[in-house]
Amino acid sequence: MTIKIGIIGYGNLGRGTEYAIAQQNDMELVAIFTRRGPNSVTPVHSSVPVYHVDDVEKFVGKIDVMILCGGSATDLPEQTPHFTKLFNTIDSFDTHAKIPEHFEAVDKVAQANDKVSIISVGWDPGLFSINRVLAEAILPQGETYTFWGKGVSQGHSDAIRRIEGVVDAKQYTIPVDQAIEAVRNGEQPVLTTRQKHLRECFVVVSDNADKARIENEIVTMPNYFDEYDTTVHFITQDELNAHHSALPHGGFVIRSGKTGENSTEIMEFSLKLDSNPEFTASVLVAYARAAVKLAQIKQFGAKTVFDIPLGYLLPQSMQELRKHYL
Amino acid sequence: MTIKIGIIGYGNLGRGTEYAIAQQNDMELVAIFTRRGPNSVTPVHSSVPVYHVDDVEKFVGKIDVMILCGGSATDLPEQTPHFTKLFNTIDSFDTHAKIPEHFEAVDKVAQANDKVSIISVGWDPGLFSINRVLAEAILPQGETYTFWGKGVSQGHSDAIRRIEGVVDAKQYTIPVDQAIEAVRNGEQPVLTTRQKHLRECFVVVSDNADKARIENEIVTMPNYFDEYDTTVHFITQDELNAHHSALPHGGFVIRSGKTGENSTEIMEFSLKLDSNPEFTASVLVAYARAAVKLAQIKQFGAKTVFDIPLGYLLPQSMQELRKHYL
Repeated sequence: MTIKIGIIGYGNLGRGTEYAIAQQNDMELVAIFTRRGPNSVTPVHSSVPVYHVDDVEKFVGKIDVMILCGGSATDLPEQTPHFTKLFNTIDSFDTHAKIPEHFEAVDKVAQANDKVSIISVGWDPGLFSINRVLAEAILPQGETYTFWGKGVSQGHSDAIRRIEGVVDAKQYTIPVDQAIEAVRNGEQPVLTTRQKHLRECFVVVSDNADKARIENEIVTMPNYFDEYDTTVHFITQDELNAHHSALPHGGFVIRSGKTGENSTEIMEFSLKLDSNPEFTASVLVAYARAAVKLAQIKQFGAKTVFDIPLGYLLPQSMQELRKHYL
Repeated sequence: MTIKIGIIGYGNLGRGTEYAIAQQNDMELVAIFTRRGPNSVTPVHSSVPVYHVDDVEKFVGKIDVMILCGGSATDLPEQTPHFTKLFNTIDSFDTHAKIPEHFEAVDKVAQANDKVSIISVGWDPGLFSINRVLAEAILPQGETYTFWGKGVSQGHSDAIRRIEGVVDAKQYTIPVDQAIEAVRNGEQPVLTTRQKHLRECFVVVSDNADKARIENEIVTMPNYFDEYDTTVHFITQDELNAHHSALPHGGFVIRSGKTGENSTEIMEFSLKLDSNPEFTASVLVAYARAAVKLAQIKQFGAKTVFDIPLGYLLPQSMQELRKHYL
């Protein structure tokens, strides 16, 4: 069986999703949908048709699962419940505090319309979440540590760009090596925010901008920078484009626990990603397969990564997985 | 609800299981069962009653899940189907080639008796297996590498002990650092058996034993040592007892894949364990909770780690998990 997929929203995540679907032998990308109108979008693979998002209804019965590639701030809270009326859906909703509310809204629609929607899929929330659950279930006496980076934080880059005189900016979140080593050594250290991550900023300013003021505004910015050791580099737009246009990211979930009388056990999951949006898209696509399998067995409703048996992520049967992967 | 657990078999794994249950707030160890007779066993926590294994039938209705702590060679192929007639069960069956056969035998009994049995639970097979599936589902274009160690291999230690003149021995499997680094760098190297792992042996021999012959027999032993670079150290029994009586282990599952045009993405799961049996037991105990949850919703039959939603491993509801762990 070929799984027929649609993409709604065609930014970095949408493009990554198109690439990821092309790597999966049992999947076919049927169409891309955009609010901007079909002529404004050039798919990575030019053979994929592009439609206005108002045309999705015509694809009921022709698409098994829609991958929603909008943003968490304003797109997904509206889009996921909306499109789950018509299709099984996957989203990457990542506003942690609003996940329960989003889940309830999506679940109601999914249950009422016999659809499956897997929300908050990606690496954090997503892969990091399941590793936190796995590690805490196995080692109840211990501490879990999450480190992010080295990688570009879009939120922090945006915050810098809002400062007067700033033309462009990229911010890297960098985990502190000594902190990671202490955790890996089983020391279960108590770490302050400052001890866990550094922040490094590359900033392009307008002519005659007051660099001292801008640097001070960055390093003292509440919530974003004031609790961290932050380094600011002023560079040209050409330098920023040449050396800081990629979106690498990654991180570590490490649990250090005790068993028996006093044995130390360390579980670690880590990612080192050249492209955050392409990898996130690859996770969405794998979970799209699980959504279709759940719909086939009529397990309708909203789901998260906690509900999904991991064997559902591969095309093979459980029998084949037992033989080849156990 | 308190989950009532029984342990069948009380070697290293059984003791680790007793420790692990004591760490879980929602679990109670009801009894330990042994073939040797109750007087031959001293539980870690002396308050736990010990029974002969022939008495298990008296505990039907009083134990929610039995954790089977026997060996894969001869115990589990017989024990798991046998005890699954009466109880939900968990085992750590790890003879890879015979897993499909074992699954079928257990599944038949579990289905016929409305029981759940999760087989082949542990870290490999087990946690490493789910990480191989997860990584391959997300990054279909790539290579997965498994490295084991540094840790004691019981099979290799036993093989050395069977050599004439050897009194005792411990063998460490050691992953080759350069190989791991090449994989982490995204090089997708082709690695021979020799390039992936080293073997280091600590051997106690009888008086006047021919050390040169023994060393030669070890390093040339087919399957076990001949394809590896092996180091042999002759030491005294006192030295072996003092420095090599622990059972540390661990390892790495690393997938290196490509997304988009040419982005490299690295997923890594690793374990660093002071006590292999205690950690394996901790995994069994977490999956025991999942077995009880599956039985409650009447999802009977044999299962593996591929069938289990990871949220079932913690005591909290899915609602609580979404709120606190996503």
